Amino acid sequence: MSSISIIGSGNMARAIGTAALRAGNTVEIAGRDAVKTADAVRALGDGATAGTWGAPPSGDIVILAVRFDGALPVVTEYGQALAGKVLVDITNPFRGDLGGMSVPDDTSAAQLIAQAAPASTRVVKAFNTLFAHIVAAGDPVDVFLAGDDPQSKASVSAFITGLGLRPRDAGGLSMAHWLEGAGLLAVNLARTGLGFDFSLGVNTGASK
Amino acid sequence: MSSISIIGSGNMARAIGTAALRAGNTVEIAGRDAVKTADAVRALGDGATAGTWGAPPSGDIVILAVRFDGALPVVTEYGQALAGKVLVDITNPFRGDLGGMSVPDDTSAAQLIAQAAPASTRVVKAFNTLFAHIVAAGDPVDVFLAGDDPQSKASVSAFITGLGLRPRDAGGLSMAHWLEGAGLLAVNLARTGLGFDFSLGVNTGASK
Repeated sequence: MSSISIIGSGNMARAIGTAALRAGNTVEIAGRDAVKTADAVRALGDGATAGTWGAPPSGDIVILAVRFDGALPVVTEYGQALAGKVLVDITNPFRGDLGGMSVPDDTSAAQLIAQAAPASTRVVKAFNTLFAHIVAAGDPVDVFLAGDDPQSKASVSAFITGLGLRPRDAGGLSMAHWLEGAGLLAVNLARTGLGFDFSLGVNTGASK
Repeated sequence: MSSISIIGSGNMARAIGTAALRAGNTVEIAGRDAVKTADAVRALGDGATAGTWGAPPSGDIVILAVRFDGALPVVTEYGQALAGKVLVDITNPFRGDLGGMSVPDDTSAAQLIAQAAPASTRVVKAFNTLFAHIVAAGDPVDVFLAGDDPQSKASVSAFITGLGLRPRDAGGLSMAHWLEGAGLLAVNLARTGLGFDFSLGVNTGASK
């Protein structure tokens, strides 16, 4: 079990919060809007508490569950409050037309967030390839992750395993660029005929 | 059934050739090395023939199954021999260290191949996310594809369905950039613990 802080109170915040509580973790929700935060805490129920926006999160693992266009300002605003934390970036920097990314071609949301965060913050990319309702459903789907610090990836992997999901290590944080691409791929597969009720995953033992 | 030409005689050429013949297609193999080509044709058996390197392929669908570092020179060398063809690009422009791509950040192997080919050649990206032995095994795995011409994608999708595999349309040819990233993701997932006996795919009905 872990103690989890979630920055944000939207769909993904609630979906991960729901899954985390079901697995026996404690969950702190910190949203910028106090009313929306209280709503989310109430909806999550027992084990959920409200955190203070901008203050050091109480959790060992901090999940940044805001839209990407707000993510860098939020990380800058939190500043040293994120020092020493494992920060899980779940954002996707998709352009509005879903034809590409809003970040430069040679980086990723996760790498920009790592640059904006204190040097002691260890950023792990995860959960960005999953639709919120799939996470909330709790079926054993694959959660791709990437990060440069093995210990942080091990903590996040243990958290994911605790949720009944499958951590799939894609490598260092520079692979976040391609995980964000896999997120874009998932959205485009959805739009070109698959619908949104699926997850990208690994078919193990495909040749058996 | 389709008539398929494969440019190349390596692992992926043989894997796709094997699957194509099993599904009742005719297969022409054109390799630069006549001895290797004859070996591949013999290994594939009934229904396989040798094509002439650089000459117009006989197949309705032409599969470019050479390594990416040779792909652009091959397309240039074929030139007008590829006019009017559906050209399936299965290449991956991975750097040797598997940390990124050998093509510029704002394009893809498929888009560079389309630029090098005659204007009437319709390029479809496909098969690049699959390991050769998975294709050869013939289990019903997902084949992601991308392309700008709906009719060509429909032809390639019908070919894939005929192989017992599942075509998954990711969108226009610019999505090839992210499909190539998904290929890199697959290789890195393999190296970080999954091994090579899997395919990236779609878990449909994940929430049911």
